[in-house]
Amino acid sequence: MNKNEIDQLARAVARELGINEPGQTVAGREAPDLSWRMPVGGGNAAAPRQRSEPRTGNTMVSAAGPVRVADFVDHTVLKAETTRGQIETLCQEAAEHRFAAVCVNGSWVPLCVDRLKGSGVKVATVVGFPLGAMRTSAKAAETSDLVDQGADEIDMVVALGEIMDDNWDYVEDDIRAVVEAAKGRVVKVIIESGALEPMQVIKASAISKVAGAHFVKTSTGFHSSGGATPEAVALMRMAVGEDLGVKASGGVRDCASALRMIAAGANRLGTSSGVKLIECIGSGPVMLKELLADPDSHERVCLTGNCPANY
Amino acid sequence: MNKNEIDQLARAVARELGINEPGQTVAGREAPDLSWRMPVGGGNAAAPRQRSEPRTGNTMVSAAGPVRVADFVDHTVLKAETTRGQIETLCQEAAEHRFAAVCVNGSWVPLCVDRLKGSGVKVATVVGFPLGAMRTSAKAAETSDLVDQGADEIDMVVALGEIMDDNWDYVEDDIRAVVEAAKGRVVKVIIESGALEPMQVIKASAISKVAGAHFVKTSTGFHSSGGATPEAVALMRMAVGEDLGVKASGGVRDCASALRMIAAGANRLGTSSGVKLIECIGSGPVMLKELLADPDSHERVCLTGNCPANY
Repeated sequence: MNKNEIDQLARAVARELGINEPGQTVAGREAPDLSWRMPVGGGNAAAPRQRSEPRTGNTMVSAAGPVRVADFVDHTVLKAETTRGQIETLCQEAAEHRFAAVCVNGSWVPLCVDRLKGSGVKVATVVGFPLGAMRTSAKAAETSDLVDQGADEIDMVVALGEIMDDNWDYVEDDIRAVVEAAKGRVVKVIIESGALEPMQVIKASAISKVAGAHFVKTSTGFHSSGGATPEAVALMRMAVGEDLGVKASGGVRDCASALRMIAAGANRLGTSSGVKLIECIGSGPVMLKELLADPDSHERVCLTGNCPANY
Repeated sequence: MNKNEIDQLARAVARELGINEPGQTVAGREAPDLSWRMPVGGGNAAAPRQRSEPRTGNTMVSAAGPVRVADFVDHTVLKAETTRGQIETLCQEAAEHRFAAVCVNGSWVPLCVDRLKGSGVKVATVVGFPLGAMRTSAKAAETSDLVDQGADEIDMVVALGEIMDDNWDYVEDDIRAVVEAAKGRVVKVIIESGALEPMQVIKASAISKVAGAHFVKTSTGFHSSGGATPEAVALMRMAVGEDLGVKASGGVRDCASALRMIAAGANRLGTSSGVKLIECIGSGPVMLKELLADPDSHERVCLTGNCPANY
């Protein structure tokens, strides 16, 4: 995709969202009605459309039928001071609830691969995290090493400064280098949407698609600009269409937030509150359509009866 | 250094500081009087004791004679969204004020090396930053690549989770791998002291020395536990003795803080406020001894006359 095409796409998406002025931010904006775009029973680039193993969380939302919310969850612990015991617990919980994946820092990948062998839970890990400001060569080397260790999915951080500088060739090459080093594994591109203007989010999403990534992801969860918003998710979903996944991450801590993200177009949730979500929404397949119709009314189906007050 | 020796050293330092109970934190503790330990005209492992080029900032504080405060400053910009223009400015300011070094994320190293050629200002960069939770192999690969690009100094982040787990062999191997990959370049070990107990800071400092590092450093500046404190600096200085440098980083934004860090034993300051420090304390050699006698009274020599109100 050349610069003209990126600009055209960005303008088209922005027009649809009613964003006309450069510098206008997404924050505070209503999420657009995307119901007409909500894929039904589809798949994404990371998985065949007809899937025999539906719980990797790679499928799009099927608003028509029942779904397991656990299929959306990347069970996540990324704090610097995380201990071995906490990673063991994370893996046990992920296996028990059959989450889509665990998401951990690189040094924990071998342990997670060992603990989750045969569980069907994927091991996702981060690259260039959380600043995205290491050299492309270092991101690629880190990716290659993590794939060799058995990582299934790579959540890489985009070069934020280069986006600020409108240096889209750099951004594209940076992502492509990680995609190539990942040798076919799922690559998610963390765009740190809270720190960017809508047009930058749109362009970065489009570039991620062109560079061969499988997901775009809203946030690292470590940036002062905050985490996922339904608006950022919707923007990303419109920019990548139905071929790529959209992961909402950072600050997704209760059912209402989770459902709002899914309603806006997310098909993966990065959260450390996955167990709480399951306790609330339930582990079995639920009619997501009903929940999504009014995310705030999820208390009706809350199994613990104390949601969201206890979060 | 084996575990017994580390424990012995840690106990000895702790005794000297009056820290007896495990779990006791450094926060709020008075910095000990280290004046008897303040080296005079010495050097450290990173530089010969008789130095022909005194402005790399590697020298210890000579409380007896005049010093340039700029020699202490690693002029730092590490935010994810940093742009090329900001890096250009950083380099210009560093060259103009003859700071010890610039400190930048890896992707900016080639630009800084080019801009600072012949200036005498070192290029410091970060590895495994800011979480320290990437694999040792990735830290070593990143270091090697950055050294090849011309980086003079490597500020690496220690494996915080392994410290929490008392896994000191891992911590030592992790640091040693970076020291080896750095091929003789200065390595600073960022210990994230705010998140650790004093005994852990002492042990991590001692391990850094054993593993061949040249500096210990208080903080990444990105952790929720905060940045440098005089107490952490003093603890580190006592743990490493006079052979290693101590870098205070994170939250060093005004002259009073800077002087307090130096008084506690720091011989390098990681700060983005270097220019302000120089405006306040002055660029020429000053009698640091007088300033250090009462850091709060630095306003007496403030050249701008508006310190610290304008910070």
